[in-house]
Amino acid sequence: MKGKTVGVLGGMGPDATVDFMASVIALTPAKRDQDHIRMIVDHNPQVPDRQEALRGDRSAVVGTLIDMCLRLEAAGADFLVMPCNTAHAFLNDVIAAIHVPFVHIIDETVGEIAKLQPASKKVGVLATIACVQSEGYQSAIAATGRRCLLPEEKTQFELMELIFRIKRGDKGTGVRRSMRRIATELMAQDADVIVAGCTEIPLVLGSADLDVPFISSTEVLARRTVALAID
Amino acid sequence: MKGKTVGVLGGMGPDATVDFMASVIALTPAKRDQDHIRMIVDHNPQVPDRQEALRGDRSAVVGTLIDMCLRLEAAGADFLVMPCNTAHAFLNDVIAAIHVPFVHIIDETVGEIAKLQPASKKVGVLATIACVQSEGYQSAIAATGRRCLLPEEKTQFELMELIFRIKRGDKGTGVRRSMRRIATELMAQDADVIVAGCTEIPLVLGSADLDVPFISSTEVLARRTVALAID
Repeated sequence: MKGKTVGVLGGMGPDATVDFMASVIALTPAKRDQDHIRMIVDHNPQVPDRQEALRGDRSAVVGTLIDMCLRLEAAGADFLVMPCNTAHAFLNDVIAAIHVPFVHIIDETVGEIAKLQPASKKVGVLATIACVQSEGYQSAIAATGRRCLLPEEKTQFELMELIFRIKRGDKGTGVRRSMRRIATELMAQDADVIVAGCTEIPLVLGSADLDVPFISSTEVLARRTVALAID
Repeated sequence: MKGKTVGVLGGMGPDATVDFMASVIALTPAKRDQDHIRMIVDHNPQVPDRQEALRGDRSAVVGTLIDMCLRLEAAGADFLVMPCNTAHAFLNDVIAAIHVPFVHIIDETVGEIAKLQPASKKVGVLATIACVQSEGYQSAIAATGRRCLLPEEKTQFELMELIFRIKRGDKGTGVRRSMRRIATELMAQDADVIVAGCTEIPLVLGSADLDVPFISSTEVLARRTVALAID
């Protein structure tokens, strides 16, 4: 297996990147090391805070992401992925500066809803505040003719706090239970699919926790990455 | 936290690299993404088979490793690590071509025995056949005045087969139990420390499995990486 080399803009957050890489490895049909996919990973947790940048000056984040993309290209990446939904809000300003394809996590994840759950009408999305404010999921879901359900404002703040707790390494039952409750509130509003639109969320929540189909943006991106790389 | 950027020669094997990255992240004192260490990882599982190369033509492996080092340097790595013990047998031919420090996993691991278990006299080493044949652990352990105990030839072949099974994704109780039995045989010969001298081994064996101290080369390298990066 030679295949394509994947460039990964990582570190946002660290555990989520490792989870993404583990998914790529697990999803690759392989019997020995050499059957696996080459990934060049810029695990850069020092990208400035995306939540803050979306409220104010975006330039530092945009500049850092472009720099990471160009380094990955120079290192041999055939296409790029970024296992962080929020950071995709900066993508329009980044794309113009790069020369290889960039696989968009939100577009891929929403595409997966239509493929896996064609009858779905209302999609519950768990994401960061900045990701919600940049409306990536809302517009992509609306384009498929579905409704996007989001937590109420107070719950959305609580969700953000849970995401920060996961980033601090807290993946215990307290966080898991609260995350499940927030998803359940969306199901009570008739969400027939729940999307983990933040790559921290699958670190604590899985299909077994919910009564409706659960779509992890991490896993969708990993599956797409494998398909493109071994093509 | 700015710190140093770590260059990781990875993919040998894939799960072991992810395990190493997860250890670095877990060992870093951090409250948010930005407190973590930047790692540029060339996760290249397509490095030719190290076991075969050490029996015959080393040049393809040496060439690939040099190329990976130079790409990581160009991408901004301040020092390099390689979470694969066997591949260190090629290091003498690689070092001359590079310009940043390379942290040697075997030297660090053996140094840790002296630090953590100063009274230890006989060190049991679990490693690949090629790693054993290249005598890295034997000479480093002898230099500390200790004896190095290795599995008998037939058991060493069995150990190699277990390592290949882990590389194929089999981390089940069968592999775990066999690995533990091999370690126990070394303890029956008075090994007072067991070293996982292959980064696949800590994926199935841990301190809790053994009655003597267990030193994981993955964890030693991760701890040293964190110390150097945040220095």
